[in-house]
Amino acid sequence: MMKNVEHIGIATADLAAAEAVYSALFNVQPYKRESVESEQVTTSFFKINQTKIELLEATGPDSAIARFIEKKGEGIHHIAFEVEDIVAEMERLRNAGFILLNDVPRQGADNKLVCFVHPKSANSVLIELCQEIR
Amino acid sequence: MMKNVEHIGIATADLAAAEAVYSALFNVQPYKRESVESEQVTTSFFKINQTKIELLEATGPDSAIARFIEKKGEGIHHIAFEVEDIVAEMERLRNAGFILLNDVPRQGADNKLVCFVHPKSANSVLIELCQEIR
Repeated sequence: MMKNVEHIGIATADLAAAEAVYSALFNVQPYKRESVESEQVTTSFFKINQTKIELLEATGPDSAIARFIEKKGEGIHHIAFEVEDIVAEMERLRNAGFILLNDVPRQGADNKLVCFVHPKSANSVLIELCQEIR
Repeated sequence: MMKNVEHIGIATADLAAAEAVYSALFNVQPYKRESVESEQVTTSFFKINQTKIELLEATGPDSAIARFIEKKGEGIHHIAFEVEDIVAEMERLRNAGFILLNDVPRQGADNKLVCFVHPKSANSVLIELCQEIR
């Protein structure tokens, strides 16, 4: 079961510049910055009520964010839904015919286990499932 | 002030097919369908906790959704933030240098007054402001 939209990820070419834009847009400062070395990204988080907006910048050419920007430019990269039990949800989606990009959950930003659903499975939208690590 | 992520709009080429995909993804049926003639779109709404997912299909070639799909294909089209006072928020953003696509709020789907911020102003993300019509 999808509990809520946990965050929306936005691919940016220049995180500091994007932070300035979104700080002005939301009239609030990012509450957290975090680098995820395994993903080659630096992130900056805003929170609008219960939903986070995650700005992402690639730190290396092999980062998924670098490839996304090369192909499509900046813009919305993914929607993340919080789930209660990521393993059970992955199993449910696999059985429903969705293509998952991860066989098992992996460690993501913000203390989460994550799994991505292939955009081909969801009208070109990259869907992330995430579960808080307790 | 942005109160919450009211909905995320997804441009689809075939609404019925997309509804089937997202019903399976969310394990829930859309709770509402609505056509907005002025926008030349048909929409279908899901609700995940407090955030709506709005699937959009163009009903005419001049629809913004038709042009989006022609240019970029299916995918996430916009993020809508609920605001308390859309006129005040438009004024605040204009003063902060954001380019607005509407001079005054217009009637959108789902009983809302809406205004769009130009993607050029926000790292290629189309931002919608919306205020419930009371």
